[in-house]
Amino acid sequence: MLGRSATVSLAEALRLMRLHLLPSNLEEEQLPLEEALGRITSQEVRSPENLPAYPRSTMDGYAVRARDTFGASEGLPAYLEVSGEVRMGELPVDGPMPGTCFKIATGGIIPPGADAVVMLEHTVNVDERMIEVVQAVAEGGNVIATGEDVSKGQILLPEGHRLRPQDLGLLAGLGIASLVARRKVRVGIFSTGDEIVHFRETPAPGKIRDINFINLSELTSEAGALPTYYGIVPDNESRLLEVARKALNENDIMLFSGSSSVGARDLGERIINTLGPPGIIVHGVSIKPGKPVIIAVAEGKPVFGLPGHPVSASVSFELFVLPALKHIAGIQKSELPQWRTIQARIMRNINSAPGRTDFIRVEIRMLPDDQPAEAYPVLGKSGAISTLVKADGYVVISENRQGIKEGEIAEVRLFS
Amino acid sequence: MLGRSATVSLAEALRLMRLHLLPSNLEEEQLPLEEALGRITSQEVRSPENLPAYPRSTMDGYAVRARDTFGASEGLPAYLEVSGEVRMGELPVDGPMPGTCFKIATGGIIPPGADAVVMLEHTVNVDERMIEVVQAVAEGGNVIATGEDVSKGQILLPEGHRLRPQDLGLLAGLGIASLVARRKVRVGIFSTGDEIVHFRETPAPGKIRDINFINLSELTSEAGALPTYYGIVPDNESRLLEVARKALNENDIMLFSGSSSVGARDLGERIINTLGPPGIIVHGVSIKPGKPVIIAVAEGKPVFGLPGHPVSASVSFELFVLPALKHIAGIQKSELPQWRTIQARIMRNINSAPGRTDFIRVEIRMLPDDQPAEAYPVLGKSGAISTLVKADGYVVISENRQGIKEGEIAEVRLFS
Repeated sequence: MLGRSATVSLAEALRLMRLHLLPSNLEEEQLPLEEALGRITSQEVRSPENLPAYPRSTMDGYAVRARDTFGASEGLPAYLEVSGEVRMGELPVDGPMPGTCFKIATGGIIPPGADAVVMLEHTVNVDERMIEVVQAVAEGGNVIATGEDVSKGQILLPEGHRLRPQDLGLLAGLGIASLVARRKVRVGIFSTGDEIVHFRETPAPGKIRDINFINLSELTSEAGALPTYYGIVPDNESRLLEVARKALNENDIMLFSGSSSVGARDLGERIINTLGPPGIIVHGVSIKPGKPVIIAVAEGKPVFGLPGHPVSASVSFELFVLPALKHIAGIQKSELPQWRTIQARIMRNINSAPGRTDFIRVEIRMLPDDQPAEAYPVLGKSGAISTLVKADGYVVISENRQGIKEGEIAEVRLFS
Repeated sequence: MLGRSATVSLAEALRLMRLHLLPSNLEEEQLPLEEALGRITSQEVRSPENLPAYPRSTMDGYAVRARDTFGASEGLPAYLEVSGEVRMGELPVDGPMPGTCFKIATGGIIPPGADAVVMLEHTVNVDERMIEVVQAVAEGGNVIATGEDVSKGQILLPEGHRLRPQDLGLLAGLGIASLVARRKVRVGIFSTGDEIVHFRETPAPGKIRDINFINLSELTSEAGALPTYYGIVPDNESRLLEVARKALNENDIMLFSGSSSVGARDLGERIINTLGPPGIIVHGVSIKPGKPVIIAVAEGKPVFGLPGHPVSASVSFELFVLPALKHIAGIQKSELPQWRTIQARIMRNINSAPGRTDFIRVEIRMLPDDQPAEAYPVLGKSGAISTLVKADGYVVISENRQGIKEGEIAEVRLFS
């Protein structure tokens, strides 16, 4: 059991976690295109046909034989008879004879005999039946050839690709009306603590309402996974173990928050290590907030014991649960930045202990013109939950820095 | 009718559009907290109670009378008898007498008589009943007072705030189990063109499958609005007008794509201007792609005629429909950056016409260590749809630039 006795650095915690994550093996589902947004492909998607299916014009103009325009210029235009028109949505059966052209719009199919399109802007109308071409066009000019956009059999999307609106558009265009994707990641969540009641209950004096479940479950949904709630579990070993086993069994990731009382903290640790090997991988990370996080693996699934404090729980969810979730979802190319960011001027000195990564919540004030935005650290006692709501995002102070000076420009990660 | 005869700049198009948008007046809905993610508050949300409801400890340690620790130091510790313990979830009825202390965990309620908490780290156990305090604590030290986090009546969330997971967490913590928000924005969408068939149909020769509907409707969903599909409408004036009227009537925003044939383009313009004043505000913007976009207002609602080409339709949706949608949704503070971005080295010269804003699709390759990522322009004829899928995002070349040189570092906006 590594990293138990002392906290480890953020980078080391992530490295240890990744070391223990198994490759994604979620079952596949067949999905109609309309339900596939945000889902992850479980295999390459290949094109069943050519796009375009016929050569098409990429411009409004006239379909011509390119050789009929050779040498044409403003001073010495080529004269072509307009002998027909390509109608949108129809496969042309006739085409221009030598010395003639067909009117064509963007997307129109190149008619037989034609091999290029002269842009409208390079023509002058002489009369209703005749145009001047004032600039020559090469063979294939302003034409997109059959299969030039997508050729039959070509890989459209790799495995492990998160489906975006434009991906679904391309698939629709190729007649792929359904596809195979991995099922959603299931995340079992519960809250622990004798002092916690459901937020719809009126807490007895001394009790407090559960904040973490709705926060963590909505963060889970935002990440495209399916949260399941296993309730609030009191600090009772056999009850905790029962719920933890059930939640682990029914989900791909299990997490709980809380057990913040001194005795209960050991309880959370004991429960996790009872679930199966390898058990706890990291217990305590040199971050603030979020330090007491537990990262574990049992039955090949990630298990997280998040701090009970909502701000700490949020930060440790983002730092550890989210990457594990994406890994299990099977997302490749996940190395692109995951956050919206803004460069902002820090408006107050922020101190940080060396060797610790700090996540400082800030409120952003935009300034007119091209002045950098201002970032105001949201202050509040460490028990304060309202700070999370006042903040627009946070600044990361890495472990090798001792803080940020007032006036410095720093990158702020914005909340979703 | 402004901006019809000539294209206008991107900034001018947005200015003209904003000038014509009415304030949001979407109806309110009462929503349980579990269904409120991403919704927009229609009024301020105020706290019905104090948080915390009782003074609580922000640390693990001992609840004390601060004066019992005055002057305590490593060399001259204060000795306190441990006369009790605060149990989590219970309102303490007893408290420490002078010269004694109560064991307390983070979140525990400060017992009667105590006014501060000595951190565990500042104590040494003498025996089971006695501790040494090696550092003094001031009155209120390590205590969060009643209402210090949130006070009763305080504004928690402003009007026009998009609800995030942490916001729902705070509301849950205060017992706000449902709240009033604006209903979702409804967007009516149809595709036009004699050549377009639904993507589940097998296109006859010359016809092509509709790409735009699914792309635009998923972009609409991603933005938190409700798309409704009005089918594919042929280039027929009375049929188009009928569908346009219906879609406008039943939605807050109406948009269609297509009508790309030369004659049909005037048709789209005629239809929009028949819907009511002020009609077309912008027709043609100096952007590439997306230039032929039509921006209009009828019956106080934004109406968009988007280009038929899927890449152009996507770009003009992001540039114009999205801000209009957010405006109607009633989102305030929408000035924060809307995109994830990355600084990347442009790997090929990109030319751009001055006076035009270009959106160049690029594929990102991440490099190890701290090297900047590489951005490869995704090339393809203007008719190519596959470029949209190959790209991870795009580079914006503003109208006062003539391009980007190979090797330059530029900001890339990443697709969602």
